Amino acid sequence: MSRRGLFAGGAATAAGALARRDTPPPQPGAQVEPFHGPHQAGVATAAQAHAVFLGLDLLPGTRKEAIVRLLQLLTDDAARLTQGRPALADTEPELTASPARLTITFGFGPGLFEAAGAGSPVAGLPAFSTDKLDKRWTGGDLLVQVCADDSLTVAHAVRMIVKDARSFARMRWTQRGFRGQAAGKTQRNLMGQVDGTVNPTDLDSAVWIGQSGPAWLRGGTTLVLRRIRMQLETWDAADRVAREFTIGRRLDTGAPLTGRAEHDEPDYHRLNRLGFPVISEFAHIRRAHVSDPARRILRRPYNYDEGLTRDGKSDSGLLFASYQADIARQFVPVQRSLAEGDLLNEWTTAIGSAVFALPPGCAPGGWIGETLLS
Amino acid sequence: MSRRGLFAGGAATAAGALARRDTPPPQPGAQVEPFHGPHQAGVATAAQAHAVFLGLDLLPGTRKEAIVRLLQLLTDDAARLTQGRPALADTEPELTASPARLTITFGFGPGLFEAAGAGSPVAGLPAFSTDKLDKRWTGGDLLVQVCADDSLTVAHAVRMIVKDARSFARMRWTQRGFRGQAAGKTQRNLMGQVDGTVNPTDLDSAVWIGQSGPAWLRGGTTLVLRRIRMQLETWDAADRVAREFTIGRRLDTGAPLTGRAEHDEPDYHRLNRLGFPVISEFAHIRRAHVSDPARRILRRPYNYDEGLTRDGKSDSGLLFASYQADIARQFVPVQRSLAEGDLLNEWTTAIGSAVFALPPGCAPGGWIGETLLS
Ligand code: HEM
Ligand code: HEM
Repeated sequence: MSRRGLFAGGAATAAGALARRDTPPPQPGAQVEPFHGPHQAGVATAAQAHAVFLGLDLLPGTRKEAIVRLLQLLTDDAARLTQGRPALADTEPELTASPARLTITFGFGPGLFEAAGAGSPVAGLPAFSTDKLDKRWTGGDLLVQVCADDSLTVAHAVRMIVKDARSFARMRWTQRGFRGQAAGKTQRNLMGQVDGTVNPTDLDSAVWIGQSGPAWLRGGTTLVLRRIRMQLETWDAADRVAREFTIGRRLDTGAPLTGRAEHDEPDYHRLNRLGFPVISEFAHIRRAHVSDPARRILRRPYNYDEGLTRDGKSDSGLLFASYQADIARQFVPVQRSLAEGDLLNEWTTAIGSAVFALPPGCAPGGWIGETLLS
Repeated sequence: MSRRGLFAGGAATAAGALARRDTPPPQPGAQVEPFHGPHQAGVATAAQAHAVFLGLDLLPGTRKEAIVRLLQLLTDDAARLTQGRPALADTEPELTASPARLTITFGFGPGLFEAAGAGSPVAGLPAFSTDKLDKRWTGGDLLVQVCADDSLTVAHAVRMIVKDARSFARMRWTQRGFRGQAAGKTQRNLMGQVDGTVNPTDLDSAVWIGQSGPAWLRGGTTLVLRRIRMQLETWDAADRVAREFTIGRRLDTGAPLTGRAEHDEPDYHRLNRLGFPVISEFAHIRRAHVSDPARRILRRPYNYDEGLTRDGKSDSGLLFASYQADIARQFVPVQRSLAEGDLLNEWTTAIGSAVFALPPGCAPGGWIGETLLS
């Protein structure tokens, strides 16, 4: 059963989007991110204000044919919804009129490869001493990452995806996040830090999988999603000096402790009057720093905030989303270095962890996963 | 112990806000809603994109003096944060730079009046046959309503409020909501309906308490907050004809079934060919309609969406926030009429309920509640 017939109309969509751009005034809600292309959207896309990450588990006994149908169905939903059009079985078509830069991105966990009878390019991470993983936020066969600048758009897209996935998979976890709306500036996280300064700029080497990866995954990437709780109660007790020392950057400007402006290069050799490094050996940015830009991870984190736990502690932190061509060569060494001696560990704990391979994008008429499964 | 000294600087703030308006380009995050004035902000304020409603319970034994200190403290926090300035004990001052139309609104539940030794102008609602109230979302001594266009702004403000309230009260519930960003148009709810068309325009008669209320409450109002779950699974099974019949309005335009445009007056007398009213006797808008605009409730609802429940059902609906001068004369008759015969009841269930008196606003140097407690 081919659903290729569903995918006609890509050109019509583009025309629609253009026409929409002619109508003044430009509404932020009308902004459209392209769905089709060599890479999936939602990775290099300038991060939207809201995200929901869905972790799904395939129903027992789901085999390759069913996975193909599921992916064709969800690709079709994503291709429509992201362009401001209703999904095929949309029950609230009016809620799709404001795509607000909606992106819908798919990832495959180890369990999906197993079910499809294919070798998995991703595996669970090694254990880190600083982790306290909760099964509730860990693992998953299929990732659907839904991001947009409008929460209602996200909520509706999630509902359509969940509905169409229902006969194939059940929900393992739902994680919702948000980012401050810092137009033109680097966002801040809930600890108040400027978060997102150093990221790779050449995504072709750092993020997109090339010749060295499996052929079907070229143009794709991998995602490590870590749910990292912030112990904001004890963080409150730390003064600004301690906080800045912990990261190695200033809270106000985000500048390195050895510089003045956010994007100044940190000087890791500079010593203070006592002969100690200005940026501590255990400062987060030193422990996390990778000098070769081609080996850096792409961080695209969202804040999460679920209010208070039953014992009155804040249940908030970071949905740390890290995209990289190679998890073992890029993410793991950084995470290991942090686990071994990052001052920030005093106030943060990874409570969830999941890894996914994100297949390349597809052309109109194609579907996400076709390079592996067709 | 007077904290009046804290409240200096109202003029400086206004000047700051004006100066900020001169700097191009205008950032939506920099937009400021006034805090001081005859009415609290957050009621007549054009609804922001995000809201958190906090329901707090005073600690056992909390008496009037402590309540006064709590309210002075929280008023000071609100006066600063809403104007884009850090709270006095702010641990992340940088997170206050983007107020994004932040409003912080306070309400008193029956328990606060009791603790303060004052008569309560609000009481629990009568029981409605359609309710399935969960204690988890019901009641509360003190309401803090935090709204802004930026989730990070809301999260930070909530954190400051919760921290300052901690020695006086404990959290009873936290309810977060969002609205679609329909610039210049009436928002839609998660059922896809245009929601918010008919609202009172003369707030002085419908919303703000005047001569007929207790003197200390003049310029104030009351809030009924209902958490109303939507059974979206069964709603999905209803076709568009049934959905439109249920409300009495069209899904696409929001126009009444007897009209063409959203703001056309519904014709409740018009009959169809079979001699039945076009807008059913049991249609939501007919059951909820109040002909005297001075007796209408002001609806300022937010969508909520907590993902899926354990049994895979959607946990979403409406945080139905209704403001009115008089609950017994305005809210209760409408709710009773709906409970008796609203078609929408098939797909909605009130699972939480709380009532609060919202004192008037205050001038610079004053505090919310001073008209009752000082
Ligand atoms: C709640 C947890 C975390 C917080 C609050 C946090 C915060 C920060 C901050 C404030 C910076 C400096 C500004 C910037 O370049 O963005 C930074 C940099 C960085 N972080 Fe984190 N981070 C967290 C977890 C992690 C984790 C788990 C990893 C990777 C395993 C990581 C990797 C990095 C990297 C690679 C940099 C850039 C370092 C460089 O300058 O080259 N962070 N983080
Ligand atoms: C999930 C629950 C509810 C949904 C989805 C809902 C939806 C709607 C919709 C779509 C309209 C028509 C457009 C408009 O004027 O805004 C409406 C009107 C209205 N609703 Fe609701 N509503 C809900 C609950 C309630 C409740 C609990 C009350 C009051 C107790 C209420 C009172 C009203 C009033 C007063 C109107 C305007 C009626 C008029 O035309 O005069 N609604 N509602």
